[in-house]
Amino acid sequence: MKINKYIGVRDFYPEDMVVENYIFDAWRKVANSFGYKEIDTPIIEPLELFTAKSGEEITSQLYNFTDKGDRKITLRPETTPSVARLVVQKQKELKKPMKWFSVSQCFRYERPQKGRLRGFVQFNADCLGVETPIADAENIALASNILLELGLTKDDFFIRLSQRELINSIFKNIKIKNIQPVFKLIDKKAKISEKDFVLGLKDNGLNDSQIDKINLLFTVKSVEDLEKSGLDYDKDAFENVKQISDYLTDFGLKDLMVLDLSVIRGFDYYTGIVFELYDRTGEFRAVAGGGRYDDLVGVFNGERCPGIGFGMGDAVLALLLEKKGLLKKLELSTDYFIAIMGEENSSYAIEVANSLRKKGNSVEIEVANRNFKKQMNYANSINAKNLIVIGDEETKNKSYKIKDLKTGKEK
Amino acid sequence: MKINKYIGVRDFYPEDMVVENYIFDAWRKVANSFGYKEIDTPIIEPLELFTAKSGEEITSQLYNFTDKGDRKITLRPETTPSVARLVVQKQKELKKPMKWFSVSQCFRYERPQKGRLRGFVQFNADCLGVETPIADAENIALASNILLELGLTKDDFFIRLSQRELINSIFKNIKIKNIQPVFKLIDKKAKISEKDFVLGLKDNGLNDSQIDKINLLFTVKSVEDLEKSGLDYDKDAFENVKQISDYLTDFGLKDLMVLDLSVIRGFDYYTGIVFELYDRTGEFRAVAGGGRYDDLVGVFNGERCPGIGFGMGDAVLALLLEKKGLLKKLELSTDYFIAIMGEENSSYAIEVANSLRKKGNSVEIEVANRNFKKQMNYANSINAKNLIVIGDEETKNKSYKIKDLKTGKEK
Repeated sequence: MKINKYIGVRDFYPEDMVVENYIFDAWRKVANSFGYKEIDTPIIEPLELFTAKSGEEITSQLYNFTDKGDRKITLRPETTPSVARLVVQKQKELKKPMKWFSVSQCFRYERPQKGRLRGFVQFNADCLGVETPIADAENIALASNILLELGLTKDDFFIRLSQRELINSIFKNIKIKNIQPVFKLIDKKAKISEKDFVLGLKDNGLNDSQIDKINLLFTVKSVEDLEKSGLDYDKDAFENVKQISDYLTDFGLKDLMVLDLSVIRGFDYYTGIVFELYDRTGEFRAVAGGGRYDDLVGVFNGERCPGIGFGMGDAVLALLLEKKGLLKKLELSTDYFIAIMGEENSSYAIEVANSLRKKGNSVEIEVANRNFKKQMNYANSINAKNLIVIGDEETKNKSYKIKDLKTGKEK
Repeated sequence: MKINKYIGVRDFYPEDMVVENYIFDAWRKVANSFGYKEIDTPIIEPLELFTAKSGEEITSQLYNFTDKGDRKITLRPETTPSVARLVVQKQKELKKPMKWFSVSQCFRYERPQKGRLRGFVQFNADCLGVETPIADAENIALASNILLELGLTKDDFFIRLSQRELINSIFKNIKIKNIQPVFKLIDKKAKISEKDFVLGLKDNGLNDSQIDKINLLFTVKSVEDLEKSGLDYDKDAFENVKQISDYLTDFGLKDLMVLDLSVIRGFDYYTGIVFELYDRTGEFRAVAGGGRYDDLVGVFNGERCPGIGFGMGDAVLALLLEKKGLLKKLELSTDYFIAIMGEENSSYAIEVANSLRKKGNSVEIEVANRNFKKQMNYANSINAKNLIVIGDEETKNKSYKIKDLKTGKEK
């Protein structure tokens, strides 16, 4: 019986796993450098953890099912609600701020396509318990520094910043009554024509003056632009974006920032700054996205606990790194291959392997009793850096020579 | 709405995750030292991958369900069948031997109890494509070296070795007709009384002479014991165990080995050596277990591909390490805490953090605008090693001092 892999999930052979681990290592390294601590939450969660805030319609995108004890459960589609659950469970004990990150397998029932999978790994970094522009800027800087750590530069990606309260205030002042459908339209603006966009706005009851102001909104690329635009906005929300922008400049990210008030973000739990990291060419989906969510913990009966966080998936990131040629250097290798000339020399070969492994080297010994030529082919196939041949002579003298397989020289 | 965690799965707060990562790091370090390469397979697999070999009854222990496209799928309960699937998919391209390991989330629908969870992480290490005693010994040594790496010693654990063909030949020579129920009885021998064990054997039609020989079998603790026992066994299978024992001696594991022909292992795909790592006190379940499975790839329509492998779960291992006091040294810490005296000094504080982070340090800066005393309390709560205070003076002079929080001295 031949059995195929399930659709939209991935197998990682050793050469694929090297890429995954390269990404995971960067996630952990940068998060640790910011003092964020790793946590983990279960892949299986009660279904209501996700329907509580997003409603029952979200189940069409979930891997939800009923367990053998009749409990409604789901594979998590994201980790932010789980993080909120962790906060509620220990809210009295936890020292604020909680700076947490996780590397989590997530699952969504979606039509698989390039960069969008049914099973993916998401990096999440959240700072909970404080409500300050510096915490926001630091979280955005953490996200950006991961891409820089992986070799991407300001020519490859940029940060799109927006602010929920700021955009809400502008919309209110333009006197748009029904904001949600307009948000949805803006969210898919990039995928539809200019004409269809304007028609859509008209369908939602916007007049020409309102449409002009929305189009004016899209010309804004910085806080300075917004100040000069003549648009009417909430001063506190503006001040918040300005402060975050200033801190991001301190973090060395000035050239990466764009104020883009068309950034909405899907989840409706965001309350303040929202941001996305995008590749400059716009070829891929967002590499990362997140924002401030000050009311989420409250939804789960916790005390109010403000938070800022973002998610970054492995799939789009790997595609972008591949495209930029940043994965070429990654290759599998083994420090030592120990060839064995005759089974009777295995004992000494094992002894040599033991001592090299104790020193932290990766060592393969011949386990297939092959002839010398075949052993050499294998040593090349695993990209062994050094060769040790153990024959009768070596066993007798309890000594061996190391040959560097790149230079061909004995060490 | 308060939402509780799903039963039998775990939340890992930062202090718990340190323990998990300590175990995962040891798994990866030792596997890499043996030249095994990391792979990963999907958590969701087609249901038939597990029913193909084990039959439909296994579904009672699975998290199986039907997806929204009417496909029968399951969360994996173990990874060995997935490994076989990976081999079949690329059998022509793969260079033998394939030495693969994985760190995999697995799920079983079981009654949760100490060391037995519904969601757990399993380390698997398999060597495929060869059929030699040295490959077997190396795989067993890899498992053992992980426990040694984690600080356990020969006083804490031992290796129970058995061999499927050897025990089959002994049973055949004792003329036991229906071997499977006798295997099942032996498997639960430790949990029932001596009397019930003998009664069970009698119920399965064994006479006194057969029962004597089975009890004789249990007195055997080494290959030498077996040779002297007078029991009648297959010579090749015996030679196989003897060779593996000799190699394990070369690997420095002589004091850890016990020949124990009562080791059966649940999975029926094993064909040769089988082994388990157990704590000496017998308080816990097996820490690791595995064996040779030469026919599994064939079940999935691949060409015959012999293999040896084992699994090791995180839960029992963590309990054992905890009991032996080996987790005490693990604690969260942060290299630097940067206190900020007044928001106006945040820019310079960020600048200092940037430079320390670039050097690979973990650095937290104050993000909550607290007074100095509260910042100091927080620095202690995160176990910060060093303190930097950024005030007006530091910002003006663009310089700062580092205080070692352990010694209290300035650096």
